Amino acid sequence: MRLRNKPWADDFIKENHHITELSPLSYKGSWRDLFQNQQAIHLEIGTGKGQFIANMAKQHPDINFIGMERVKNVIVGAIKKVDEAGVRNVRLINENAQDLRDLFAENEVEQIYLNFSDPWPKNRHEKRRLTFHTFLEQYEHILSSNGEIVLKTDNRNFYEYSLVSFSQYGMELEEVTLDLHAMGDPLNVMTEYEEKFLNKGQPIYRCRAQFR
Amino acid sequence: MRLRNKPWADDFIKENHHITELSPLSYKGSWRDLFQNQQAIHLEIGTGKGQFIANMAKQHPDINFIGMERVKNVIVGAIKKVDEAGVRNVRLINENAQDLRDLFAENEVEQIYLNFSDPWPKNRHEKRRLTFHTFLEQYEHILSSNGEIVLKTDNRNFYEYSLVSFSQYGMELEEVTLDLHAMGDPLNVMTEYEEKFLNKGQPIYRCRAQFR
Ligand SMILES: C[S@@+](CC[C@H](N)C(=O)[O-])C[C@H]1O[C@@H](n2cnc3c(N)ncnc32)[C@H](O)[C@@H]1O
Ligand SMILES: C[S@@+](CC[C@H](N)C(=O)[O-])C[C@H]1O[C@@H](n2cnc3c(N)ncnc32)[C@H](O)[C@@H]1O
Repeated sequence: MRLRNKPWADDFIKENHHITELSPLSYKGSWRDLFQNQQAIHLEIGTGKGQFIANMAKQHPDINFIGMERVKNVIVGAIKKVDEAGVRNVRLINENAQDLRDLFAENEVEQIYLNFSDPWPKNRHEKRRLTFHTFLEQYEHILSSNGEIVLKTDNRNFYEYSLVSFSQYGMELEEVTLDLHAMGDPLNVMTEYEEKFLNKGQPIYRCRAQFR
Repeated sequence: MRLRNKPWADDFIKENHHITELSPLSYKGSWRDLFQNQQAIHLEIGTGKGQFIANMAKQHPDINFIGMERVKNVIVGAIKKVDEAGVRNVRLINENAQDLRDLFAENEVEQIYLNFSDPWPKNRHEKRRLTFHTFLEQYEHILSSNGEIVLKTDNRNFYEYSLVSFSQYGMELEEVTLDLHAMGDPLNVMTEYEEKFLNKGQPIYRCRAQFR
């Protein structure tokens, strides 16, 4: 569903420039300066309404979180969540994950979260999936040597596709979990979609993968 | 459950020496001579009562199948199944999969099937799982360069473990299928356990993996 542009979204984003970074390209290679510390940087792609990043930031004050969300009307929700959480270790950027190398220097990021990414089920849309090999190339570039991708999804086909894509790219799977909430990870932080699908009784899949 | 040894099992195995190979060690490197053709050799480890191998052999007369089963009382069932199927491209061997390099030469096998292998859920039994790295070393040795491992199971933890084990060994995943019968593979041949778990409504997991 395409939402109509809330006319005030632009203004709201600008007003909250302590949470949203309006010139993210200028911080390539110097994100830690923006955060004014030397903590690790974790990037979430497709932050949505921000529940995950706001709560992760609370749980891990020793990490800097950057949330990327391409839809203005959606990032507005994330700004509110981060604001309410009162955390200072988050920046949101209204960007499309396609030129990550313009936004981050080599090895600048320690972890990438892909939470309930759009599955793009049609074969002809394979290139748009955030686990297509062109994206993996970018992740490989910006991730540090022990950096990880952590993926969660409810979508079986997207999950199957992603495991094979990681593997065929040469990545190593560190963890494969086919029913996250059956296993119960006390440190897991739920996203909005995760809550929704969990309430419907669907299993949540997770995996962690590293470049070799 | 341990079955008591059927006293006639030994005799039955010997009588059926056209189906069971009683001196498998002597065929290392020359299994094709036994089959009297140059067809590819596929190995199933833990053949159980033989439904899979008997029906695969019917479906693929152009392939030679070897079924390995360590329990005498169980292999008896497989002998009957293969006999009833009237196929000539199967040999059963009453062996334990631990010294595969004594049974097969380098590159002699093109495919290995692990169907509903015992999951050995306790951590301290990890070494017994047929996807533990010591087994992978053996599979790598006997498999030909494009050889594959095809694994099916109902056991979520064993499946998760196996995907990670394959990946960490350096293998490439060619296929990951989390609900085989939802997808529906017309060429799939069911095992006894598969039928049982399918009837209980459990998903069947499958994967295909290759050494690089
Ligand atoms: C299905 S939603 C999931 C939202 C949230 N991660 C969750 O789990 O609740 C996917 C989100 O990713 C965003 N998105 C999809 N592709 C993107 C891209 N290439 N760059 C940035 N954001 C993207 C969408 O706008 C949407 O908000
Ligand atoms: C759970 S049953 C599955 C049987 C059959 N594959 C099926 O799917 O219906 C596992 C079988 O593997 C056999 N098995 C387990 N470990 C083995 C090993 N190391 N070598 C040979 N056979 C083994 C067991 O005796 C048992 O018959």
